[in-house]
Amino acid sequence: MKIAVIGLGNAGLPLASVIADSGFEVIGVDIDDERCEKINRGINPIPEETGLDELIGRYGGKRLVATPRYEDARGCESFIVIVPLLIDEGHNPDFRILEEAFRSVGKILKKDNLVVLETTVPPNTTESMIQSWLEEESGLQLGDFYLAHSPERIMTGYSISRLREFPKIVGGVDEESGRLAFDLYRKFIPNLKKVSSSRVAEFVKIIEGSYRDVNVALANELFKIAEELEIDFHEAREYANHDYCHIHLPSTGVGGHCIPVYPWFLINEMEKREWFSFAELQRTSRKINDEMVGYWAERIVLKALDVDKPLGRVKICLKGITYRDGVKGIYHSRNLALARLLARKGLQVGVYDELFTQGEIESLSLRFMDPDDADLVFDCFDLRFSV
Amino acid sequence: MKIAVIGLGNAGLPLASVIADSGFEVIGVDIDDERCEKINRGINPIPEETGLDELIGRYGGKRLVATPRYEDARGCESFIVIVPLLIDEGHNPDFRILEEAFRSVGKILKKDNLVVLETTVPPNTTESMIQSWLEEESGLQLGDFYLAHSPERIMTGYSISRLREFPKIVGGVDEESGRLAFDLYRKFIPNLKKVSSSRVAEFVKIIEGSYRDVNVALANELFKIAEELEIDFHEAREYANHDYCHIHLPSTGVGGHCIPVYPWFLINEMEKREWFSFAELQRTSRKINDEMVGYWAERIVLKALDVDKPLGRVKICLKGITYRDGVKGIYHSRNLALARLLARKGLQVGVYDELFTQGEIESLSLRFMDPDDADLVFDCFDLRFSV
Repeated sequence: MKIAVIGLGNAGLPLASVIADSGFEVIGVDIDDERCEKINRGINPIPEETGLDELIGRYGGKRLVATPRYEDARGCESFIVIVPLLIDEGHNPDFRILEEAFRSVGKILKKDNLVVLETTVPPNTTESMIQSWLEEESGLQLGDFYLAHSPERIMTGYSISRLREFPKIVGGVDEESGRLAFDLYRKFIPNLKKVSSSRVAEFVKIIEGSYRDVNVALANELFKIAEELEIDFHEAREYANHDYCHIHLPSTGVGGHCIPVYPWFLINEMEKREWFSFAELQRTSRKINDEMVGYWAERIVLKALDVDKPLGRVKICLKGITYRDGVKGIYHSRNLALARLLARKGLQVGVYDELFTQGEIESLSLRFMDPDDADLVFDCFDLRFSV
Repeated sequence: MKIAVIGLGNAGLPLASVIADSGFEVIGVDIDDERCEKINRGINPIPEETGLDELIGRYGGKRLVATPRYEDARGCESFIVIVPLLIDEGHNPDFRILEEAFRSVGKILKKDNLVVLETTVPPNTTESMIQSWLEEESGLQLGDFYLAHSPERIMTGYSISRLREFPKIVGGVDEESGRLAFDLYRKFIPNLKKVSSSRVAEFVKIIEGSYRDVNVALANELFKIAEELEIDFHEAREYANHDYCHIHLPSTGVGGHCIPVYPWFLINEMEKREWFSFAELQRTSRKINDEMVGYWAERIVLKALDVDKPLGRVKICLKGITYRDGVKGIYHSRNLALARLLARKGLQVGVYDELFTQGEIESLSLRFMDPDDADLVFDCFDLRFSV
């Protein structure tokens, strides 16, 4: 059986590799020509992904063939779509990439094929928009083909072990779709559970994100209070946490493609339905997390009290600009936002990140600064100062 | 060594019994004469407390002597205070019971005695108010006596096993107090940790409560959204929860002496310091949880659509009036608030609770109703209707 994986990004490529490793022929479709070529030569384009080098080396260009052309996936029996869903500045999902992918799949879809969406989406997306796009382009009706949702639960760096160990769920837009998707997926996902519908599967993934975002906001709120009360938050957190208490770590905010995005799916959906207060806690959490850069900007300015120089000449270095420690990604990075905020205030701020060259940092319109040349260094991940 | 335990309530009596069981002579002081007599006759006044019958039977009136007179505790080397701290309608703590207890202890305090507070209190209470009360009444200075905080972490029904297994913390107002309290407590608390100060110990206990309250609010918010989206929240929750996700259960709100009270300690403290937004998430959570009775009142009224009778004649029975299932306590019970809210709206509402007699229910100005006589029954704990 041949399986198409649409999207060979940080989530799609590990999945495609694990499917190939389970004995299937995989056609991977990705718009990035260069990335496809690399994969076909057996070179892993995501080196920080543990275990991926080996799988790409073994299957790239052989059992896993990457291509920028949907046409090459014609003849596959199953299509797994795992492309990004971004949100715009008004926090509304921008479905263009998803629509392009599903309409392209629709054009090569045949009777009895199965389509599975892995991208995290707002509730009801699979059974409404996605089903329509496929029906419009293929001329088929649901029942001629099958459609399910199995939200990705990877974590960059640990995606392979997540796929092999972590519980994964699948739900169909109808009974038969759910059953078929479950039967396929359990051939390469050992810890697989079936939920009653694609809508439940969508909701499960979103509320995991909301749990994280709200709990990071709580950690940030409690951290600010502890600082005000002159209490060591980390000491208190260590002793507060036990089997029934899971206080998270404070931060400069929440970045990346997932956690800062998913709560908006529910917030917007409730506002559309005129339940304006139904997602108030999630909205408050988003605000608290986003405003942490303002809190840290003030802390950094006040730290300059320890430097015997006019404020305008104090060289401030922010260490760490990615959205997560150790992952070379800057999508929604609040550390980047913090650097820009300080620069806008007129301070002398530069950044340093061991994952980025000076040129890469400058191409982001940021000033590069060696921590050794700074008067004041703020580590954006462990939230500590050195003067 | 003789130890005094001030307050033989749901938290104090299990602690006093466990201390007696570890070989100490215990003088328990409680204002309730009748309760003291019972204990001295070996009768357990909290029958729902697992394992307490046996300890009271064995030690009551012998190694554990209960008395309403502080004078009888003169000569004890250590004083453990575990009396209630209530909050008033403006959410401000009412320290009168604590002050009375500590001033009474102060009057019989002698050089080198150790005083430990177990009641959960706002940050800095131990090192400010409590230390002053003791110094004023005893004429001694800290250093002549020792003072620490070890917040109770019991749960009615499981207090004995909590004391014997759950991690407990202790912190002193100064180094020596912390050390002495730790040395004493580890003689009867096997899983004991020392934190750096009484202030950290206070904060640890409060933020555990805030974690619970915020996460119940999140569960309530997600439940309301799931209902609106026609998704089975309980199914979604089951699959969302794993090692890194701990979504709580929805409810009619949060009751009892602890969770709805502790977040106010931080909210009020921040407002006093004019950091008006510093506890916003906790304030929002309090509001969401408190407002759940309004949500359920509407759901109950709409459920009457299924009953073929004029709304004013529909007999509505709420099952469960306590703040927690299986615990005979109504402090801050939101189920009670829900019953009163429905009655105020002019509906025919009665309540039923297997822990209460008809007479007890009527003494709360509520109407008793047998579920079998009702047109509509709402179970306040499992949130299910039967018509």
